[in-house]
Amino acid sequence: MKINFLLFDQFETLDAFGPAEVLASGEGYELEYYSAAGGTVTSRQNVAVVTKPWSEADSGGILVLPGGMGTRPLAQDEGFIALVREAAERSLYTLTICTGSALLAKAGLLDGRRATSNKRSFEWVKSTGPKVDWVGSARWVVDGKYYTSSGVSAGTDMALGFLAERFGVEEARTIAARVEYLWSEDPDHDPFAVE
Amino acid sequence: MKINFLLFDQFETLDAFGPAEVLASGEGYELEYYSAAGGTVTSRQNVAVVTKPWSEADSGGILVLPGGMGTRPLAQDEGFIALVREAAERSLYTLTICTGSALLAKAGLLDGRRATSNKRSFEWVKSTGPKVDWVGSARWVVDGKYYTSSGVSAGTDMALGFLAERFGVEEARTIAARVEYLWSEDPDHDPFAVE
Repeated sequence: MKINFLLFDQFETLDAFGPAEVLASGEGYELEYYSAAGGTVTSRQNVAVVTKPWSEADSGGILVLPGGMGTRPLAQDEGFIALVREAAERSLYTLTICTGSALLAKAGLLDGRRATSNKRSFEWVKSTGPKVDWVGSARWVVDGKYYTSSGVSAGTDMALGFLAERFGVEEARTIAARVEYLWSEDPDHDPFAVE
Repeated sequence: MKINFLLFDQFETLDAFGPAEVLASGEGYELEYYSAAGGTVTSRQNVAVVTKPWSEADSGGILVLPGGMGTRPLAQDEGFIALVREAAERSLYTLTICTGSALLAKAGLLDGRRATSNKRSFEWVKSTGPKVDWVGSARWVVDGKYYTSSGVSAGTDMALGFLAERFGVEEARTIAARVEYLWSEDPDHDPFAVE
């Protein structure tokens, strides 16, 4: 099973690499890093990552979309949003972290669904999807094949929750312990809630 | 102030990028990513990072050394250990995460000092530095300019502890909250202790 990260300039580093750290322990999971056009993309924290073009992706895998400042211009980029729409529709599951959910919302894929996002950018994110049932108090939200997390660090908790649903909660706890991570297991407990 | 990450093939992704996420919020901190020879290095979780050669680093900054499977062969690599020794001696502070402390230990820089490491690899790490006072129960340990953390996720807690000492604990808490991170503030509380 391919775990396809779709990166872009000014993505938030931990949004992508916290989930990557734990998803890599999913049995049979192979992590791949893409961007729309391929080449080097640079995170908000100055990490330059070599990516392949999305056209080469096995798009039937699991899509992971980080957030970060880079989502602001991309939410206005019709070409990129069309790519996100097609990638997410083809994926078996789509996981977004932080403001990554704004990209899914812009693509219309969260309309009528429950979703969450970064709590510091919540008003902006809400504006990207007026028909979305935005949840202001959740570490992460699952609605069908769409998993959306709160800000940055919440993505790692969501990724472990995703692994728990696929492989069982004991396996997810084992993976968390291996990286000495204190997993917040309850998706509804949100210390950073806004409403 | 330069924050210089020294990366290598098969480094553990979150060891480097958890600390990067929070250290990037240190006022005046600029994050740079190096490897011994420069070029692309690939993490254990398949992240290919573009690095500059260490010879180009402003080595008077803050050195960050991740751990991971890549430390096993490097601990036997005299050339790399000599580079680590010089880099750490020149640095204002050196932070290691997980088995990164084995590299410092091999360089002799932890002799007579307190230090910690990944709890799952603790016996191996102890063998790399028989004269080190290894602490089996600590989220992270500070001894002089050397900061060493437990496994993987503990590095983020240590990095926030480092920021607290430089900028005050309230600033560190603000940075943690911005990324919706539940900071384990107490370096002596170790849920994964081995002794």
